[in-house]
Amino acid sequence: MILTVTLNSALDITYRVRSLRPHSAHRVTDVRERPGGKGLNVARVLAALGHEVTATGFAGGGTGRAVRERLADTPGVTDALLPVAGATRRTVAVVDELTGDTTQLNEPGPQIGPAEWAAFQDAYVNLLDGATAVALCGSLPPGVPVGAYAGLVRGARAAGVPVLLDTGGEPLRRGVAARPDIIKPNSGELAELTGSHEPLRATQDARRRGARAVVASLGAQGLLAHTPDGHWRAAPPACLRGNPTGAGDSAVAGLLSGLVENLPWPDRLARAVALSAATVRAPVAGEFDPAAYAELLARVTVTGEVTAA
Amino acid sequence: MILTVTLNSALDITYRVRSLRPHSAHRVTDVRERPGGKGLNVARVLAALGHEVTATGFAGGGTGRAVRERLADTPGVTDALLPVAGATRRTVAVVDELTGDTTQLNEPGPQIGPAEWAAFQDAYVNLLDGATAVALCGSLPPGVPVGAYAGLVRGARAAGVPVLLDTGGEPLRRGVAARPDIIKPNSGELAELTGSHEPLRATQDARRRGARAVVASLGAQGLLAHTPDGHWRAAPPACLRGNPTGAGDSAVAGLLSGLVENLPWPDRLARAVALSAATVRAPVAGEFDPAAYAELLARVTVTGEVTAA
Repeated sequence: MILTVTLNSALDITYRVRSLRPHSAHRVTDVRERPGGKGLNVARVLAALGHEVTATGFAGGGTGRAVRERLADTPGVTDALLPVAGATRRTVAVVDELTGDTTQLNEPGPQIGPAEWAAFQDAYVNLLDGATAVALCGSLPPGVPVGAYAGLVRGARAAGVPVLLDTGGEPLRRGVAARPDIIKPNSGELAELTGSHEPLRATQDARRRGARAVVASLGAQGLLAHTPDGHWRAAPPACLRGNPTGAGDSAVAGLLSGLVENLPWPDRLARAVALSAATVRAPVAGEFDPAAYAELLARVTVTGEVTAA
Repeated sequence: MILTVTLNSALDITYRVRSLRPHSAHRVTDVRERPGGKGLNVARVLAALGHEVTATGFAGGGTGRAVRERLADTPGVTDALLPVAGATRRTVAVVDELTGDTTQLNEPGPQIGPAEWAAFQDAYVNLLDGATAVALCGSLPPGVPVGAYAGLVRGARAAGVPVLLDTGGEPLRRGVAARPDIIKPNSGELAELTGSHEPLRATQDARRRGARAVVASLGAQGLLAHTPDGHWRAAPPACLRGNPTGAGDSAVAGLLSGLVENLPWPDRLARAVALSAATVRAPVAGEFDPAAYAELLARVTVTGEVTAA
């Protein structure tokens, strides 16, 4: 089983409006809801790839109930979210039908109490027992200490479970120092971590800071990976049009599934890029089309070299 | 007991953001939730004035549960909302901290089935039995026939219960023809009903269409009333600054409480204008400050004349 951790899970709400104009009233023409937060997105893609996934983190209030009801309808994902007193946050994506652009409103998330955080840490150790890999994803809700991911990375390493960390800012900085197996920053997160806007230099620097492998997502240009086995660039076939929401989470699912299947790095990267591209192309944000994935997988180019033994 | 009907109740959510910019992502700094929909706002103000209120209409899903939980915490309001299969709509008000302006996103509301609508009509007749007045407020959710308010007005008249109608468009046009005791259109609704943008002429015309009394709300200029007893203008003391959300609902509560207390029309109008102005001035949208209300009540000017007997 692959374990995904979503400390700040969300009820993702998508509104369609004819045209978003600040300071006026809008009739919402279509409302969609789904479980959100990076770790739950990763879990959904892993399950679609045929993996057994357990999703943990926090859920509370009416919004938490809505997340869990929808998770129960997702085959392959086991709900191991811990109940908390506060309400799970909402994210609202407002899609402008005229321009196709999206405006995002993100609630901060519930206050997590010390007892709730302690209960999570205990549950996490128990869940690691049956895990082949673990992904730690997304922002921290208020009340969770900024060094939380560092502790969870150490826990995974102590249990001998490979751990991928996908977050930003200070939680990433501290998490990297605890030596995770893989980090997957985007270019902004990578620059903030290393102080360098030059991706090649920055991925190397991130490895020196403690990450065993660094896979930087460079948007439409694909992935740049520095690993103990070598370094590669993996690029999608052409300019992709669509909605990039969830593309990074699909890449994480690709990397993680490739890891537990013991694929060589170039194959893991090709899978991650193809899943990511199929997510951008999908009509519904954050979903991916299996046929598009298969077609794109054959057309991803991976270039690079293996480190001399 | 005063009965308020909110067929399209809502969970009103208010977000504060630093500055709303379309097509970008925003961190919401503050989240507030409260029961919404015009009839529930009217109920809250009536209860604050010391009246016993029963609130009916529909509530469903997680959002309906949230509305009912919060209603249970409102002293003086009895929850008689009917459960439905669909989820109660959300409204999202995004307050821009830099400009103070509000951008509104309104969900359409749940689909109401024929059996649910029939069940409501039965419950309504039973509730009218103990009512001293009834307010029919707001938009109709999908599935409720456009002539719904006309039927509810006729039901109230058959039961001998004075009925106030506060809605717009075709539901107002049909409702007026059923001869409600009071309608309270704003200038846009009044113009749409009568085809006239001249408030004096339009209120007279609306009476000819069937409304016994017409109280037009003219925003910062206060109220214009045409009734069988006479016609009046009631104006707040000066230019008011603040948030007009819920001001119209406070005016309805003022008119309705004045009616059941048998106040003469000028006193009802003064109360409605003072409540409305106190709502605009309140720091929280849709609330009103009792001290501001008392102070404003003494400063409302009512001019007009009584119809010769």
